[in-house]
Amino acid sequence: MSEALAEDLGLSGDVTTNAIIDPKWSAVADIVVRVPGMLAGLQVAIEAFRQVDPTIELAALARDGDKVEAGQSVLTVSGNARAILTAERVALNFLGRMSGIASLTGAYVDCVAGTGATIVETRKTTPCLRAFEKYAVRVGGGANHRFGLFDAVLIKDNHIAVAGSVGAAITAARSHAGHMLKIEVEVDTLAQLEEALAHKIDVVLLDNMTLDELHKAVAMSSGTVLTEASGGVNLDTVRTIAETGVNLISIGALTHSAPNMDFGLDINVNTV
Amino acid sequence: MSEALAEDLGLSGDVTTNAIIDPKWSAVADIVVRVPGMLAGLQVAIEAFRQVDPTIELAALARDGDKVEAGQSVLTVSGNARAILTAERVALNFLGRMSGIASLTGAYVDCVAGTGATIVETRKTTPCLRAFEKYAVRVGGGANHRFGLFDAVLIKDNHIAVAGSVGAAITAARSHAGHMLKIEVEVDTLAQLEEALAHKIDVVLLDNMTLDELHKAVAMSSGTVLTEASGGVNLDTVRTIAETGVNLISIGALTHSAPNMDFGLDINVNTV
Amino acid sequence: MSEALAEDLGLSGDVTTNAIIDPKWSAVADIVVRVPGMLAGLQVAIEAFRQVDPTIELAALARDGDKVEAGQSVLTVSGNARAILTAERVALNFLGRMSGIASLTGAYVDCVAGTGATIVETRKTTPCLRAFEKYAVRVGGGANHRFGLFDAVLIKDNHIAVAGSVGAAITAARSHAGHMLKIEVEVDTLAQLEEALAHKIDVVLLDNMTLDELHKAVAMSSGTVLTEASGGVNLDTVRTIAETGVNLISIGALTHSAPNMDFGLDINVNTV
Amino acid sequence: MSEALAEDLGLSGDVTTNAIIDPKWSAVADIVVRVPGMLAGLQVAIEAFRQVDPTIELAALARDGDKVEAGQSVLTVSGNARAILTAERVALNFLGRMSGIASLTGAYVDCVAGTGATIVETRKTTPCLRAFEKYAVRVGGGANHRFGLFDAVLIKDNHIAVAGSVGAAITAARSHAGHMLKIEVEVDTLAQLEEALAHKIDVVLLDNMTLDELHKAVAMSSGTVLTEASGGVNLDTVRTIAETGVNLISIGALTHSAPNMDFGLDINVNTV
Amino acid sequence: MSEALAEDLGLSGDVTTNAIIDPKWSAVADIVVRVPGMLAGLQVAIEAFRQVDPTIELAALARDGDKVEAGQSVLTVSGNARAILTAERVALNFLGRMSGIASLTGAYVDCVAGTGATIVETRKTTPCLRAFEKYAVRVGGGANHRFGLFDAVLIKDNHIAVAGSVGAAITAARSHAGHMLKIEVEVDTLAQLEEALAHKIDVVLLDNMTLDELHKAVAMSSGTVLTEASGGVNLDTVRTIAETGVNLISIGALTHSAPNMDFGLDINVNTV
Amino acid sequence: MSEALAEDLGLSGDVTTNAIIDPKWSAVADIVVRVPGMLAGLQVAIEAFRQVDPTIELAALARDGDKVEAGQSVLTVSGNARAILTAERVALNFLGRMSGIASLTGAYVDCVAGTGATIVETRKTTPCLRAFEKYAVRVGGGANHRFGLFDAVLIKDNHIAVAGSVGAAITAARSHAGHMLKIEVEVDTLAQLEEALAHKIDVVLLDNMTLDELHKAVAMSSGTVLTEASGGVNLDTVRTIAETGVNLISIGALTHSAPNMDFGLDINVNTV
Repeated sequence: MSEALAEDLGLSGDVTTNAIIDPKWSAVADIVVRVPGMLAGLQVAIEAFRQVDPTIELAALARDGDKVEAGQSVLTVSGNARAILTAERVALNFLGRMSGIASLTGAYVDCVAGTGATIVETRKTTPCLRAFEKYAVRVGGGANHRFGLFDAVLIKDNHIAVAGSVGAAITAARSHAGHMLKIEVEVDTLAQLEEALAHKIDVVLLDNMTLDELHKAVAMSSGTVLTEASGGVNLDTVRTIAETGVNLISIGALTHSAPNMDFGLDINVNTV
Repeated sequence: MSEALAEDLGLSGDVTTNAIIDPKWSAVADIVVRVPGMLAGLQVAIEAFRQVDPTIELAALARDGDKVEAGQSVLTVSGNARAILTAERVALNFLGRMSGIASLTGAYVDCVAGTGATIVETRKTTPCLRAFEKYAVRVGGGANHRFGLFDAVLIKDNHIAVAGSVGAAITAARSHAGHMLKIEVEVDTLAQLEEALAHKIDVVLLDNMTLDELHKAVAMSSGTVLTEASGGVNLDTVRTIAETGVNLISIGALTHSAPNMDFGLDINVNTV
Repeated sequence: MSEALAEDLGLSGDVTTNAIIDPKWSAVADIVVRVPGMLAGLQVAIEAFRQVDPTIELAALARDGDKVEAGQSVLTVSGNARAILTAERVALNFLGRMSGIASLTGAYVDCVAGTGATIVETRKTTPCLRAFEKYAVRVGGGANHRFGLFDAVLIKDNHIAVAGSVGAAITAARSHAGHMLKIEVEVDTLAQLEEALAHKIDVVLLDNMTLDELHKAVAMSSGTVLTEASGGVNLDTVRTIAETGVNLISIGALTHSAPNMDFGLDINVNTV
Repeated sequence: MSEALAEDLGLSGDVTTNAIIDPKWSAVADIVVRVPGMLAGLQVAIEAFRQVDPTIELAALARDGDKVEAGQSVLTVSGNARAILTAERVALNFLGRMSGIASLTGAYVDCVAGTGATIVETRKTTPCLRAFEKYAVRVGGGANHRFGLFDAVLIKDNHIAVAGSVGAAITAARSHAGHMLKIEVEVDTLAQLEEALAHKIDVVLLDNMTLDELHKAVAMSSGTVLTEASGGVNLDTVRTIAETGVNLISIGALTHSAPNMDFGLDINVNTV
Repeated sequence: MSEALAEDLGLSGDVTTNAIIDPKWSAVADIVVRVPGMLAGLQVAIEAFRQVDPTIELAALARDGDKVEAGQSVLTVSGNARAILTAERVALNFLGRMSGIASLTGAYVDCVAGTGATIVETRKTTPCLRAFEKYAVRVGGGANHRFGLFDAVLIKDNHIAVAGSVGAAITAARSHAGHMLKIEVEVDTLAQLEEALAHKIDVVLLDNMTLDELHKAVAMSSGTVLTEASGGVNLDTVRTIAETGVNLISIGALTHSAPNMDFGLDINVNTV
Repeated sequence: MSEALAEDLGLSGDVTTNAIIDPKWSAVADIVVRVPGMLAGLQVAIEAFRQVDPTIELAALARDGDKVEAGQSVLTVSGNARAILTAERVALNFLGRMSGIASLTGAYVDCVAGTGATIVETRKTTPCLRAFEKYAVRVGGGANHRFGLFDAVLIKDNHIAVAGSVGAAITAARSHAGHMLKIEVEVDTLAQLEEALAHKIDVVLLDNMTLDELHKAVAMSSGTVLTEASGGVNLDTVRTIAETGVNLISIGALTHSAPNMDFGLDINVNTV
């Protein structure tokens, strides 16, 4: 957050506000929803105002996870007018991005309702914003995959290519990775899946498989490892994928292509 | 870049690659385009690999601004296999985001060809990635608006609301902002525009005006100040807006809602 | 500020104070002016004490911009005796430097009273202290030039030398710099000025011109661009330069050669 | 150094140079002395260019400590034209400040030649630049006092005021400060000096004493502790102070009020 | 590493070496083992010298994991004499600590040879040095437990106390922790173990159990979860604990109480 | 402290506590001594909890320097249950290490009671924890040697080897090191000591001398310089070394090999 404010303020600060607004003036403003969607990131927006001026009063009118309507106010901001105007854009940039992700996640979650499948994101997140984006996925009803390269083993096609075979890669992982780390293996074919299942693993990633392959893969894996589907997932296909019985569906677009959700800040009272 | 790598690697690093790949193995891989679009961010992707291992060799096969096709290779990466696999995701995350922005910008620029209008982005950028995103807009044929709150005065509706009037805000800005800073004023109506033009300003932002209002605003402003249109701009409307004669069209979606452009890293040679 | 304290304290802290002063003792001290001048930086001095101990009470007895006399107390500091003695030097170092700059700026501003000329500083500031020094110039009655290389275009002699001509440099700047950045051009001769004025620019820097040249330059530029004089400016010459009608006079010495203004900290009450 | 460059470049960089100068152009320039004085900081100036572009070639034509004349070139800079122009001001700001300090120190050192007195600076240095400024004092022929609060004990008037007496302060210092730290005591009167000399100390600071008092103080201290004079020292008084036989003379003005020494960067060859 | 060097060098550097050693002198030195043990951290020692002077030449004479004898040289260091003497202590401090941990780990690993038990460390590591210390455990033949609080779930007695029961804690963990994280549960009694095994978990930590309890616990857990013993482990008890059949034995003392292994740096050639 | 917490928490935080403990639950816990020893670092442990949650209430039940018994509670921690569990390990890691050092120092201090010798540590401290460890030595009744390379001159065997002789090294140090820095010289033989005493120095380090040599060295040095013994010091030998009359005894093991002192955190009240 401090980096985001520093990016916008530079060393010379908000030259517009500082020139026009008396440092003693106060104001009251509302953050208002411009398009319907799911709210996420309200505490992050609040933090933006607090970092610019710890004395600003912030009254939340909604909570993360709420479905909100255009015109609805989600936060009332009262205090020093300069600080409110200076923090506005950074607060809205976080709020719009996080709510956009939560809204898109929520749409996928709604599509798979009742199937037992869990929607998860990938590591295709915005550089430096991963924690914010993973939180927004949870707000939208999804669950989180591993955080990064460090907290679980995921053997992908390139690892297999370098290691020589699915089995060689799994064997090496089981020997050298810590006993506290789960092991997931990406497979493209049922033959690879069979090879993977011959070893002790925790999760299998079924990449770009047909619905028929997914059905068979679920049957092969059932009761021993979790199954995760990825590739070719969109709002039209996600339910039929879920109905194959996979445990998890991972979707890169949740974090790399969710459209921003529009919010604005409206000055509604102004005491000078 | 170092922050993005730290986010993905944490303190314990790439546990998968370190468990499976011998530190002495080398590999050759290509970064391959998965969908057509405009390339942007190749030097940033290169920097991701370099930071993980300065000895990796990187051969660019295309340049930022190139229109690229699915299947086309844009970068060959040769060297330590661990380093290549560890840096892959961060490199692709930057490349996909920046190319997505350049591609969307290019689409808008194509729409307004011949009108004389310039496409510019806003401050609705991804927190901490503004410099990367503004660069991608330039690659796509757009131009850059001010970088942040510090390098130009932009008097917006909220400033006017607090200051009391368009005139009061401009007068204060001219008195207190440095003589080296340009002054832009956002107006919603032709009446506000008339009030603004009574003072010495550099640019006027015509927000959410109808095409008819834009035509009139351009006529009123002509020869004295630059005109910038914003609000309700999409690929269907941008040309008719440009044809009103405005100098600049600013579009928040360029940076906050450009879909990611898909790239992959394919191991194509593997010497162990 | 935290860097300045770290520089003085190192890792082992104030070994004198820690050895001699009981951590429970408190004291009251005054910051006292030793030579007449203009006060600037009181909030910075206050911040030095606050960073060492947030519980110190600080009562300002004067305000930035006040003309103060030798012997006058400007700040009363009450609280933990160790903290007061530890922060003393850093607080005084900032106060003396900033007040020195404000005092020198005030002297120049007084010299040009009534002429309409504005005194501005240059980028010849102390590395890492630019924001403090630009503030002190404003306190002294001056105005600020651009903050750094990033917030305005200033085409100097070396740019012209590399670009080939005044015209080539301006043309390139207008094509490639953002539309929100002002353009200033440095010229040494009236011929160069004429060449510069043939293009659309915002400010012209008249470097090392004679009074006669300045008169002519002002006449040539009048009504179209702001004029700034630089070179050979001192307290003896500044008024005649101002009387040529230039809008701005820039003076490197304001920030690079202002003598320190002397302050001391006197313990005046001591409760152990 | 990196902080100084960041201060000047901000996030958007040198907008003038980037707009005008082709990234492929190279240039050769000289850093030239504008007024006579003593050179200090050449390696720091070199580092400024190196940080902007490690491939710039830098040929020193003089060395720190050299007395240089107006018009003399001290450094030839060859390489990327953008980088040279971007780093110019930061390089010159360090060079001018450090050479100004060395020149002033050298003037004091010349004044006391043959007396056996050593010129030293104080902690009245520019915040964050202490190491640079202490180096410049050494270049000018002076020696360094303690670096900060952490590397020696200096019992000043305020410590004595809080501790109750000279003796109480020294006793506490000897009990609680480490055995590896020297102890200096500031005294204002011969009575205080007598009290101080009754304890084991290493250096005595004779503050604002008359020449007569200094003579007596030297006689009292001789052979047991080093003597340091401070207060009222200028180029007119320093020699008579030195002739009292004091070992050290400390001068705040060396670092807080040394006028800048003027240097310029001249493009002398330009290959595009 | 840079923090460790900064801690030793402060802002004024190695005052001894800088006063005595000519900056142009070079030297050759050996890092020599003073007591027998297992080498760990050679690359870290090398990095200390490299950070002080990248041109120093470093020739390793042994490898991490080697059992080394008193008097044996493990690294030859050649180059600038100042840099060698300045980096010496930081290099040796890392080497002694890491080799001490590896040596102690190796002693435990030797004790359990043939039992199938793996020796692991805990989170009782030196603040800020965890990655170095976990590496040293691996060098000594041990394996690593989770890196920190973030990469695996470990439900300890205090979590159970707050959650109410073993079952409640596991149920909550399985619902809310990500599917890619393993779950370990600490139990003190066989009754708690039975409760834990009724849920799906990955590892069970048997804390401070008697040998008899451990035997029973292994039998109860066998084939379903990994077993880890902790508490009361020392070089006398570790083998009988291992012989109960537990998979893992965790030992805090590996990292919090391993005695330093003594190394010295001997100048053996000196060219001035 | 913030670095130590970041090391344990990573970017994804305490996944166990966050999954199991409701964010609204509070708890009360005691930090309890597991083995007898001397307490040191209580304020550091308190700071760990404060940094995780500034609203936690912390009631100290003992003070640094207290001899504490197994089972004794030294700190009561009340507040948010998540925060208490998250900060626990970092708080205990500092407390155990610092108390271990204080306890070992206290044992040495007790051994030399009445001899007049002072126990001091060396620079063989844990990288990045030197300030904490030097504080713990003082708590244990020892005194501190120089903090680092920067605050005193210590001429060691390697300096003498490079400089050519004891005399050459001392002469260079006296010429080039600042007058505010003490000079200590390490000698291995009485011949070297004689050479050293021929120059003006402050302290002499008698390294690895026999008791007989130490007696003679003390006699030779008496009244002119402080004497410090090092090498071969342990709890069995320290008193006879002290009885030779040396002023200081330096012991590397105080900081590099003190065993951890065991503490635990026990939840004793739990209000949900």
